[in-house]
Amino acid sequence: MGGYTISATLNRPYQGTMQAVRSALQAQGFGVLTEIDLQATFKEKLGIDVPPQVILGACRPPLAYAALQADPSLAAVLPCNVVVRAINDSTTLVEALDPEAMMGLSDDGALDSVTADAKQRLAAMLAALTKER
Amino acid sequence: MGGYTISATLNRPYQGTMQAVRSALQAQGFGVLTEIDLQATFKEKLGIDVPPQVILGACRPPLAYAALQADPSLAAVLPCNVVVRAINDSTTLVEALDPEAMMGLSDDGALDSVTADAKQRLAAMLAALTKER
Repeated sequence: MGGYTISATLNRPYQGTMQAVRSALQAQGFGVLTEIDLQATFKEKLGIDVPPQVILGACRPPLAYAALQADPSLAAVLPCNVVVRAINDSTTLVEALDPEAMMGLSDDGALDSVTADAKQRLAAMLAALTKER
Repeated sequence: MGGYTISATLNRPYQGTMQAVRSALQAQGFGVLTEIDLQATFKEKLGIDVPPQVILGACRPPLAYAALQADPSLAAVLPCNVVVRAINDSTTLVEALDPEAMMGLSDDGALDSVTADAKQRLAAMLAALTKER
């Protein structure tokens, strides 16, 4: 695992975790703009079985807008992905792309506060999920 | 603009370019899994007008699967975004996230061929669009 994500390992089954992640994202001001069911995609396109995992495309519009004002090319790294993946029957990983790793791609200092805000909110989302039970 | 994207500036209006991009992606074996209308999103959520621009989430399942086999955390950087943005009434920018910039995040040598393949296909997609007219 690289240093380009932040994550939390939850002692709860995959089923039900998705809704908890949505709620935790919403509490931090993120909407979910996209959803990709990787398990279904690989099964359908390749006939291959993988563990249940979904990529949620999370976006906080004010942060996205500030990022694009600084560098329009950053649209290519939006939205912020949050992956929910079953590790086993009782354990689920929630892994978000680290905005600081992404923004490291663009060297615009104006982005520092945007990046820090996004990362703080994602970290708070993971912390809230960890505390839930 | 950072060095984390590859792009083509097309001498054609935004309207109609979207379908051309979809076709060019399909010709390179990419499906479009997600679509985010940034103009509509910013208007709805922030009441702010931005130029027409859409983020397409492109995915070539065999490449995505190979990437995840090497590093499951790479789900956080999937799919590969292709942004179509109106520059003015007669010019449209098509800008894709550079897979090599993304994969530089993960230091797994097994990814080199996957990254090179993805980048080659995206570059071919941009070249095909440029040649169209």
